[in-house]
Amino acid sequence: MSLSSRASKLTTPDPSFSILTNPYHPTLNPSGHINLAVAENTLMHASLQSHLHSHLHVPTSAFTYGDFFKRSRSAIATFLTKHLHAVSPIKPEHVAVVSGCTAAVEHISWALADPGDLILLGRPYYGAFPWDATIRTGAKLAYVDFGDEDPLGDTCVKKYEDRILEAKANGENVTALLLCHPHNPLGRCYPLHVLIDLLKLCNKHKLHLISDEIYALSVFENTVDAEPPLCHPPAPFHSVLSIDLTGLIDPAYVHVIWGMSKDFGANGLRLGAIISQHNIDLMTALFPLVLLTSVSSLTEHVLANILEDDAWVETYIKENQRKLSTYYKHITTWAKTNDIVYAPGVNAGFFIWADLGRTFRKHRKDEPEDLDQAVMDALLRHKVFLASGARFGSEKPGWFRIVFSHEREYLDEGLRRIVAAVTTPEPLEEARIDLRRGSITAEDL
Amino acid sequence: MSLSSRASKLTTPDPSFSILTNPYHPTLNPSGHINLAVAENTLMHASLQSHLHSHLHVPTSAFTYGDFFKRSRSAIATFLTKHLHAVSPIKPEHVAVVSGCTAAVEHISWALADPGDLILLGRPYYGAFPWDATIRTGAKLAYVDFGDEDPLGDTCVKKYEDRILEAKANGENVTALLLCHPHNPLGRCYPLHVLIDLLKLCNKHKLHLISDEIYALSVFENTVDAEPPLCHPPAPFHSVLSIDLTGLIDPAYVHVIWGMSKDFGANGLRLGAIISQHNIDLMTALFPLVLLTSVSSLTEHVLANILEDDAWVETYIKENQRKLSTYYKHITTWAKTNDIVYAPGVNAGFFIWADLGRTFRKHRKDEPEDLDQAVMDALLRHKVFLASGARFGSEKPGWFRIVFSHEREYLDEGLRRIVAAVTTPEPLEEARIDLRRGSITAEDL
Repeated sequence: MSLSSRASKLTTPDPSFSILTNPYHPTLNPSGHINLAVAENTLMHASLQSHLHSHLHVPTSAFTYGDFFKRSRSAIATFLTKHLHAVSPIKPEHVAVVSGCTAAVEHISWALADPGDLILLGRPYYGAFPWDATIRTGAKLAYVDFGDEDPLGDTCVKKYEDRILEAKANGENVTALLLCHPHNPLGRCYPLHVLIDLLKLCNKHKLHLISDEIYALSVFENTVDAEPPLCHPPAPFHSVLSIDLTGLIDPAYVHVIWGMSKDFGANGLRLGAIISQHNIDLMTALFPLVLLTSVSSLTEHVLANILEDDAWVETYIKENQRKLSTYYKHITTWAKTNDIVYAPGVNAGFFIWADLGRTFRKHRKDEPEDLDQAVMDALLRHKVFLASGARFGSEKPGWFRIVFSHEREYLDEGLRRIVAAVTTPEPLEEARIDLRRGSITAEDL
Repeated sequence: MSLSSRASKLTTPDPSFSILTNPYHPTLNPSGHINLAVAENTLMHASLQSHLHSHLHVPTSAFTYGDFFKRSRSAIATFLTKHLHAVSPIKPEHVAVVSGCTAAVEHISWALADPGDLILLGRPYYGAFPWDATIRTGAKLAYVDFGDEDPLGDTCVKKYEDRILEAKANGENVTALLLCHPHNPLGRCYPLHVLIDLLKLCNKHKLHLISDEIYALSVFENTVDAEPPLCHPPAPFHSVLSIDLTGLIDPAYVHVIWGMSKDFGANGLRLGAIISQHNIDLMTALFPLVLLTSVSSLTEHVLANILEDDAWVETYIKENQRKLSTYYKHITTWAKTNDIVYAPGVNAGFFIWADLGRTFRKHRKDEPEDLDQAVMDALLRHKVFLASGARFGSEKPGWFRIVFSHEREYLDEGLRRIVAAVTTPEPLEEARIDLRRGSITAEDL
């Protein structure tokens, strides 16, 4: 009642929240939902907890505003210079720290686009990008379709350029291209030559390139897919900061987002960073802006304790990557065993992109009107929650993202429920979750 | 370069940041600045640290997104129901938790005002309100002048109404009235009958009343000012949640902001909350919005450990209030001894509002062109940083806010520097800090 017009559009509850707040527990809440929808990596939690507790002596200075994150900015700069193989050393003044990459995406969208300006985003995309980049900033997203071509392949550059030209023809202002690299939900890295072509494209059209590298260190060996159709072999990860930009793009246009959530399995700690090495104006503007989304000093303390512990981090990352490789093998074996087609060639992230719609249709005679919705309804009837392709802007119906980085027992219970859901020909029920609610378009707002 | 037009306006660094990042330390950085500008309360830090360490066993669930702050929302609801003496019990669903009250102010401004809409704010005001409420939201502030009348007195209601009528005559849309209660920087509470009149005024003009009660429990006994000219005796604190709103205002228009920063001396932990008991639409809209400024699970863990420890909290609050009373006596004695006039009658917060300009002028023959700037320059020459009245929208020049909730040695060093600064007739120097930069007006943006 009497809210702003923009808030008034948000007064219908998102049904997925009632699912997220009712988590399964084998004894405490066995009727709760198994959640393989949210990209969380629990595989290293015991190790993280152990390091946290053994180094946690919070100084009283943590209770003050402190020194504007000097320690964490230094720690992040040193850590990422090494692990992203930055061409030139990242300095603390190149780093803005905020309470999570959600905030980082919002800040950079606000700073690079005015209301109505377009940011390019290829399909499928991380389902929260539209919300984070547009809901409070007024920026719009220009989605890019790839049809049957690889969204990370050579031809993607042409598709992005077509979309830029279309926007210009409509009199629209395109200001940036937002990449998730490694890609979420596809779990692959942009090949170096494609990245270079994208950088050139951005330079040509004077667009910022925002490379969200939140999965930068969650890369692993794919020991499974002998003949990936899309990339052969999987492209290794190259940070855009590792590329010598000379002759490619004005470096002031290149920005990276990184955080603790994925590579350290710590979504709950809320630490994200914007790294920009050659744009003093942007970093000056961000300095006071980030106070709106300040990171907790406790998180800063834990983060710095970790990132400054070089030897421990090396071991941690390697062990995480080894586990991810093993779990990828496990889930792809499950998929093949259960006649579930998935997009192969994955070597990053902790999810597979699977065509559950195909399996679902094989097990029933009637044809659902809305395949995504029908599969989601079936999944929820079986108390398992996945990220739907619909919310991720999938161009093909029936595809879902399945997160595999969970303890085996929990994961296997989820996988069992998925199989039950897509192979049990129950009557179609009415929609219980609006899959596309997360896909905010500029028109909605 | 090539930033959004809104970010382009922020590419000049705020000089105060270079002061804030150069803090005094008696041995490590004796040439650094004593900072009595930022409202931090360090008096209970040892006690807070002790409780934190003795209860800190972080569960691995803290590394996940968790359950959307069920525990902290419950803890805040129970705690504030008791300590704000809420007329009807606060429920968890009445609480939205975010990474600090800075974020809370931004969220509620975004949700209650559209770009160009006005929010009423009386002078003097908390210096960060303009930034927090307008910079990314596009809302505007309508400042209210009180002249020689008390900004918290009976006649303030008329002044607010005059400003509403003026805005309406200009064709502007006023959507809310933002109070800081207890008042920052004046350190006093709105008398109950004034609050009631303000609630009626809001109802009459269909305005939201946002009561920022971040200093709600930082009230204390004033044993000093025998004859306060403004309120006699100081009004006790009444939360707007403690008022039966029947017949006063549609309760959907009443919202409270609270956080850990002031009452628990924990600015660095970053926890704020919006409490609204009768506006389902607002709380529904805020539920997904607050993900943009998520609180750290570590902060949530510490917060809940504290708020759920009822007996400890009781002792903590009482001890804090006792200390504040003692420190208020100390600083007012210092002021009187050094011929510094301050606004008396304070019984909340941890600062005094002092007329340093008067003392400054008494000690020199020449008349500075800009008194605020001249005093600030003198303070900075003596390496002490205060919040200037100019940044707080003071109607009178020469007034500064002095924070007294610091360890005695640190405080006394700061007070010594203040006296030196305002009594040493050095030549006037050029401005080294733009006092008004913090006072963002809608026109600036």
